[in-house]
Amino acid sequence: MILVDGQPQDTVPATDRGLLYGDGLFETIRFTGKSAPLWSRHMQRLALGCERLRLPAPDPALLWQETATVTRGMAEAVVRITLTRGTGARGYAMPADPCVTRIVAAFAMPALEAAPYRDGLRLHLCETRLAEQPLLAGLKHLNRLEQVLARAEWNDPAMAEGLLCDMHGHAISATAANLFAVVDGVPVTPALERCGVAGVLRAELLEALPRVEVRDLPLAECLRASELFLSSSVRGILPVQAVADKVFAPGPVARAMQAHWRELGFPMEQA
Amino acid sequence: MILVDGQPQDTVPATDRGLLYGDGLFETIRFTGKSAPLWSRHMQRLALGCERLRLPAPDPALLWQETATVTRGMAEAVVRITLTRGTGARGYAMPADPCVTRIVAAFAMPALEAAPYRDGLRLHLCETRLAEQPLLAGLKHLNRLEQVLARAEWNDPAMAEGLLCDMHGHAISATAANLFAVVDGVPVTPALERCGVAGVLRAELLEALPRVEVRDLPLAECLRASELFLSSSVRGILPVQAVADKVFAPGPVARAMQAHWRELGFPMEQA
Repeated sequence: MILVDGQPQDTVPATDRGLLYGDGLFETIRFTGKSAPLWSRHMQRLALGCERLRLPAPDPALLWQETATVTRGMAEAVVRITLTRGTGARGYAMPADPCVTRIVAAFAMPALEAAPYRDGLRLHLCETRLAEQPLLAGLKHLNRLEQVLARAEWNDPAMAEGLLCDMHGHAISATAANLFAVVDGVPVTPALERCGVAGVLRAELLEALPRVEVRDLPLAECLRASELFLSSSVRGILPVQAVADKVFAPGPVARAMQAHWRELGFPMEQA
Repeated sequence: MILVDGQPQDTVPATDRGLLYGDGLFETIRFTGKSAPLWSRHMQRLALGCERLRLPAPDPALLWQETATVTRGMAEAVVRITLTRGTGARGYAMPADPCVTRIVAAFAMPALEAAPYRDGLRLHLCETRLAEQPLLAGLKHLNRLEQVLARAEWNDPAMAEGLLCDMHGHAISATAANLFAVVDGVPVTPALERCGVAGVLRAELLEALPRVEVRDLPLAECLRASELFLSSSVRGILPVQAVADKVFAPGPVARAMQAHWRELGFPMEQA
């Protein structure tokens, strides 16, 4: 079910700036029954994104009410909230008084197998590199062609994700998840001041981990980590089994973070 | 009037990848009566963009027919053609067999005053810098948040455009037009291998100018040009009068290119 500006509807105006320019933001939120354990972090990121893109921020209470409507009767769901700068005169200039388009859509939770949680994922090493744009870095905005192109680099269904670097050869993230490496015993996650999306589960882990570094992570250093794992607010904590032909084993930090994910109230597919 | 996949319609599915990810391309084409003098160049760029983004390219004859329908009865019009990768499963992976969404929309031609064509435009010098992404450079794709942010830097209605640089301080373009500078007597337009949109009027001018260089153009060099002008397939050739407080006078190359624009069959507002 989809609500557009609160009304059951499955279309948006063809003149919406979300479509014309990718002028907007989104959140992808996992629901387990009526609960969304990372809800408040999603709302925080959305509010920050609205501020940075100068979009009027919607009331989180209204969004909660609308997500309750679209997920009614679903045991497990993924809700995508999309905000755009609505319609306006043609051209890049922001309308003086924008009327934000608010799209709240529920999707069935994709089936997750236990094996990747137990044994880890194989990652393609992407040739696509993320451009550096500090004005957009960290935001979950609607300009996602880089991720689309990166994800199109491989077809092998055994590879569930790809590892993306920036133009300087720093590891940044997967195409749709954040990256953690354990280097010399210390968990590290890449700094996202120049590119990448600052995931909400990443933010959660930055508080949950007793010690963690946020810094540039050169690919070579990433590949000599004692463990690697991905964080996704939909898929949880996924250990990395291999990046191209470099092999890793799931390690204790990933296991601890999987336990943390379960403690947040998410289900147990990552047994 | 708007046609979506050939049908009169003013909405698109809320699950369209153009909206979800900016996964698509567009062209903005000026019509004067039933004629679009730069049509074949627009079609060339669109075909190249489709190839680079792995989108099935539509038949130009079909697009021509649809633009004829949407512009019927309009003396002057701007047609926006938008192509997206349609709908598909959630996630960045391209659908194996994408069903492209094709949106053809006509807008009234905005009123253009003679003064800027005669005396030149004042440009804001943008702080927003264009990120460098060779995979997307040159394309008129739907990821336009940089242009939206750049255009939001100023409100002064006397400034019609802004000058954008890349992260290395090379002048690249205006927010919605290409840039030409005359340096030591030679017309130069910035190379667009790392960022920027390769405009169709720029392509036309590259053939029309007897001598022209396509290369990196450091901002300092741009600002000591003997003349500067912008090219836009909608607005034509616009001399630059000033960039911030640096003043220019419309020069002979801009005048010659304005004459060329008229010879292409466009009207005379740039008298």
